[in-house]
Amino acid sequence: MTISPPAIILVKPQMGENIGAAARVMKNFGLTGLRVVAPRDGWPNEAAISMSAGAKDIIEAATLYDTTAEALHDVQYILAATARPRDLVKDVVTPRKAGELLAGKAKAAIKPALLFGAERSGLENDDIVLTDAIVSIPINPEYPSLNLAQSIAVLCYEWFAHIDDTPPVQEATAENAMASREEVVGFFEHLEAELDKVNFFRVPDKRPKMVHNLRNIFTRAELTEQEVRTLRGLVRSLVERKHL
Amino acid sequence: MTISPPAIILVKPQMGENIGAAARVMKNFGLTGLRVVAPRDGWPNEAAISMSAGAKDIIEAATLYDTTAEALHDVQYILAATARPRDLVKDVVTPRKAGELLAGKAKAAIKPALLFGAERSGLENDDIVLTDAIVSIPINPEYPSLNLAQSIAVLCYEWFAHIDDTPPVQEATAENAMASREEVVGFFEHLEAELDKVNFFRVPDKRPKMVHNLRNIFTRAELTEQEVRTLRGLVRSLVERKHL
Repeated sequence: MTISPPAIILVKPQMGENIGAAARVMKNFGLTGLRVVAPRDGWPNEAAISMSAGAKDIIEAATLYDTTAEALHDVQYILAATARPRDLVKDVVTPRKAGELLAGKAKAAIKPALLFGAERSGLENDDIVLTDAIVSIPINPEYPSLNLAQSIAVLCYEWFAHIDDTPPVQEATAENAMASREEVVGFFEHLEAELDKVNFFRVPDKRPKMVHNLRNIFTRAELTEQEVRTLRGLVRSLVERKHL
Repeated sequence: MTISPPAIILVKPQMGENIGAAARVMKNFGLTGLRVVAPRDGWPNEAAISMSAGAKDIIEAATLYDTTAEALHDVQYILAATARPRDLVKDVVTPRKAGELLAGKAKAAIKPALLFGAERSGLENDDIVLTDAIVSIPINPEYPSLNLAQSIAVLCYEWFAHIDDTPPVQEATAENAMASREEVVGFFEHLEAELDKVNFFRVPDKRPKMVHNLRNIFTRAELTEQEVRTLRGLVRSLVERKHL
């Protein structure tokens, strides 16, 4: 199943650099459809192109509109990225929930979009009332001025996280054979026998506890077969004392 | 409970602008401890200060180190932010899992840190082996060059998302009294009575289905008391036809 990523719609963006940075991070997360509504410095914008680097194709394919309503003409589910407005009755969702909603709509063949306002002023209520809900990024209330491209990064990241199937943890040992417990215990016995020879454990009563602690260090490390061989070689080298 | 956010450690950063942008997004998400290892252009760095804007305090309080090991001296749990290395046996986690791990450590009073490499080259294995695991941001394989400040944004966002208690959906109607079903049905009956008078439903057989569709539109909108009053006023105004 191919699903359409959300269109990113920038309403009255001011700095071309921010449009370029938006294009880059869109492409990083697999989004391609950029729409620009009444950019302050006109269109095409040289600063946007030079900032976009390897995402120049996104800038070149971007479409220009006079009004937000025109920019939204063909999309079917729209989230307004903005701080919570005081005077509108509209649900506010987190970026994580937004990613889930956008992915759900896209999987149902409903064309989604994310709407962003101008750097300083954000989205106006005239724009917000055209959208289905608001997505607001939880943030430090003492420094809430998140850069436009950073806001786009967080929301594009959440979109991608909801369509990507990377497991939360990729075990390092999946592609390196993990040592069997027999191999690990073989190393323990080798190490402890050598330590007994040099009287490392001194007080016999404390030996069991010290052995537990040492064994526990190495089981926590989830050793591979190769690492067990390396550690056995290390012990042998220390014991043999072949100085150069 | 106050918990310490992760230290952000930049190893051999090249562009001062990126250090400044890192400081800003750190502050956006409530992080304060910035450490810099052997920055290419020395320290203090004018470009970092001017880019940091309202987060200049983060740059001014940043600490400078010669080596990664020194920068890590007092932290206790470290994630290396880097693409997956081929030749090291180390778990790789997603940003979401990283946020969970970092928040878990911080809540257990274990000092966490996030380690980032130079813009072009990333972290070297000499640095990665000092860390507990790798965090890798899933990304479009055709354009995987995520900007340093954007990477920091995504990981700081995930940290904040795990310590913040914003509900996924904040219901718009929580602070505006939602209409009771009696008020909503009252509006339906008012509307339908007026529509009957103007023979809107024409074919009697189709009336039930049309009524269902109309009622369904308005119940999906989850109307407030005020909105029901507005809609009743709207119907009255249309019926009265008082043209100016």
